[in-house]
Amino acid sequence: MRIYDVIKAKRDGKALSKEEIEFFVKGVADGSIPDYQISALLMAIFINGMNFTETADLTLAMAHSGDMVDLSPIKGKKVDKHSTGGVGDKTSLVIVPIVAACGAKVAKMSGRGLGHTGGTIDKLESIDGFKTDLNRQEFFKVVNETGASIIGQSGNLDPADKKLYALRDVTATIESLPLIVSSIMSKKIASGADCIVLDVKVGSGSFNKDLDFATRLAKTMVAIGEHAGRRVTAVLTDMDKPLGNAIGNSLEVSEAAEILKGKGPQDLKDVCLTLAAHMLTLATDDAYPVCRKKAENAIADGSALRAFVNMIKAQGGDPSWIIDAKKPPVSKYEYKVLSPIDGYITHMQTDKLGLASMLLGAGRAKKEDSIDHTAGIVLHSKTGDRVTKNQPLATLCANDEKLFEQSAKTLLGAITFGEEQPKESPTVIKIITKEDIENGETLF
Amino acid sequence: MRIYDVIKAKRDGKALSKEEIEFFVKGVADGSIPDYQISALLMAIFINGMNFTETADLTLAMAHSGDMVDLSPIKGKKVDKHSTGGVGDKTSLVIVPIVAACGAKVAKMSGRGLGHTGGTIDKLESIDGFKTDLNRQEFFKVVNETGASIIGQSGNLDPADKKLYALRDVTATIESLPLIVSSIMSKKIASGADCIVLDVKVGSGSFNKDLDFATRLAKTMVAIGEHAGRRVTAVLTDMDKPLGNAIGNSLEVSEAAEILKGKGPQDLKDVCLTLAAHMLTLATDDAYPVCRKKAENAIADGSALRAFVNMIKAQGGDPSWIIDAKKPPVSKYEYKVLSPIDGYITHMQTDKLGLASMLLGAGRAKKEDSIDHTAGIVLHSKTGDRVTKNQPLATLCANDEKLFEQSAKTLLGAITFGEEQPKESPTVIKIITKEDIENGETLF
Repeated sequence: MRIYDVIKAKRDGKALSKEEIEFFVKGVADGSIPDYQISALLMAIFINGMNFTETADLTLAMAHSGDMVDLSPIKGKKVDKHSTGGVGDKTSLVIVPIVAACGAKVAKMSGRGLGHTGGTIDKLESIDGFKTDLNRQEFFKVVNETGASIIGQSGNLDPADKKLYALRDVTATIESLPLIVSSIMSKKIASGADCIVLDVKVGSGSFNKDLDFATRLAKTMVAIGEHAGRRVTAVLTDMDKPLGNAIGNSLEVSEAAEILKGKGPQDLKDVCLTLAAHMLTLATDDAYPVCRKKAENAIADGSALRAFVNMIKAQGGDPSWIIDAKKPPVSKYEYKVLSPIDGYITHMQTDKLGLASMLLGAGRAKKEDSIDHTAGIVLHSKTGDRVTKNQPLATLCANDEKLFEQSAKTLLGAITFGEEQPKESPTVIKIITKEDIENGETLF
Repeated sequence: MRIYDVIKAKRDGKALSKEEIEFFVKGVADGSIPDYQISALLMAIFINGMNFTETADLTLAMAHSGDMVDLSPIKGKKVDKHSTGGVGDKTSLVIVPIVAACGAKVAKMSGRGLGHTGGTIDKLESIDGFKTDLNRQEFFKVVNETGASIIGQSGNLDPADKKLYALRDVTATIESLPLIVSSIMSKKIASGADCIVLDVKVGSGSFNKDLDFATRLAKTMVAIGEHAGRRVTAVLTDMDKPLGNAIGNSLEVSEAAEILKGKGPQDLKDVCLTLAAHMLTLATDDAYPVCRKKAENAIADGSALRAFVNMIKAQGGDPSWIIDAKKPPVSKYEYKVLSPIDGYITHMQTDKLGLASMLLGAGRAKKEDSIDHTAGIVLHSKTGDRVTKNQPLATLCANDEKLFEQSAKTLLGAITFGEEQPKESPTVIKIITKEDIENGETLF
């Protein structure tokens, strides 16, 4: 087989065979196919698409391109959650302890962030002493003892995706349904969980700007996960405003802890309880309302917060500031961004808020950049709120005062004001379960 | 400007601006755009196409990516000819002397061959002592003194095309109308001739398998050449059978000399006279029949053969075996391929005949391979001829007897026999002149 002929077939709009797809993925992972041929094929896939069978074959070939994690040393149902990524998304920090407190097991491998704010691993590393590089045995031990562990992705998980993602990023081939689906689901399948809940973001803070695309994406991911023998549910959530009020690593850990204490912003709490309840539904086969109640109880009785503290301790972290919210790590300087007018906030461009946070040091512009764990933004008003002139809209936190000006400008540029209160939109938009997928072939 | 945005625009089917195209070509030529981004854009162009304006902009940007040859030190109208390439195509060797004998000037830069047989430069180098690496001053001097010179392409002619062609070759993006047009016409425009005749091959020995595509290609090239201020005519010729009987470097020089002596195969002679007459028509504005007569006379009165001999001498070559056909350079061994049956030759797959010749040493499989100048094939029968069992179909020439078996097998595999004589098809199919191009915008 020659990669030339595979490129030619997709160029001409033909469906690729399982053998052709496996040949391609193997060549990507072992470096035998040069970048210029990979990117030509990626563009042909972007423009001419892939049908369901091709997408499923691509996903499985990518999952098998590196280690397939075997979670069998962990007793019970293993559940995982994936978010398509969004500004201020700290749901993992809340959900993982809730689910563990309710008896399911979470052995989660997460990534670092690029752009916007940090990833889950960056957020956890804002906890003093927290280790994210556990080896496989330590990882399993923490899960068996505390119900949950979150670590960084191991070196050889889905190497084909690493290579493909890096090339897609520079060749304008990110926003392709089969390429997004295979990238997300191959990693989740290789990570070994039995049950997977997908948080699919819709809106300005994500790459799913429209609901129709996000729905097709969610349906395809559920179908492919089930096709691979996993239980999968997708939850479409709104990213037209940030989730919760905090953007930035330790600020988000604090906010997550607030939720686990039964406080914190309602939108964040609702999304977390929805996701956690769907994870429990898949793991236990209990009905959703039953699982939702269990999740709410885990917050109410303190068991979710205890699970979080236990996981932090088991991974070497110091949870004292999480237990005692009076002593969170803080940045040296604060700056209040004031409202320029009287009126309503009618829209927030979430990705620009992420950029404002990155400019304070909370995110990475380049992979090599370091992160300032205490930097970030706390919003005091969000879309739909009435504000008066000179009322503080947000507090910026940074360890370098020079960063405030540009960040504040960016933040204000992300906000649209108006005279009428905008219609409230729900944070949880839609649930896609196995039952919604009737025939995978018609998804595209 | 970022190349990412240029790729994205073409990915989405948008027309690229002149500035975007010039940015791309500059980045290709100076190496600042990496291969994987170039190939992603090539695939997007292949699938989504380019309109006439984009193709013209691309052609001119490529022409200007390196040296623009200034032929003004040569007196009179400079005419050039380009062939889209075919097996056994030795027309340049015949046409250039005819045109020079009729008073036009030919300052021709040619390439080496890859696959099939050699290129014009390889063929000329089969003449003992013939130098193809003249510098600019020597080149002009030969043209001014003898009317014609053929040399190898200079180092910095159209560097963008060199890079793009190499990538297209390995990413299945060769057969794209805008990419073919820009590759051919940018080199011709950079080469400096006032008048250009294009020999566009149609059939199994070329990449134009169908007449409709070849016609659109020819029209576009004529329109773009005229747009760039050059006079251009295209001649569509048949490549469903080889042109003439010889395939291989010195064998083709011998056959070209035969034509210049008023002998040789009729199909080759007809194509050469047609092309030469169109070159003279563009150069002199005389009507085609007048120019055709002039070209025929140049053969009849020996002036074309003298022009060929003078050019060879001026470039350091020994023309004695061309004057005296009794002493051509020959290979050590010959092998007769016999007809397996009684019947008619109903079809010859020309590219496979080229492969059979390459297997004897007459062509290059890889760029680094050396060429055996005396190796090749002389066909004794072609499409339409009646053959009897064990009648010699072709003579294979090689300097290594071991090469005959595979070559003979390939040659026989290229020939289809049948019981009925196939309909004769014309060698010259169609002429496209400036008058055939009414509106460049409707070509695509």
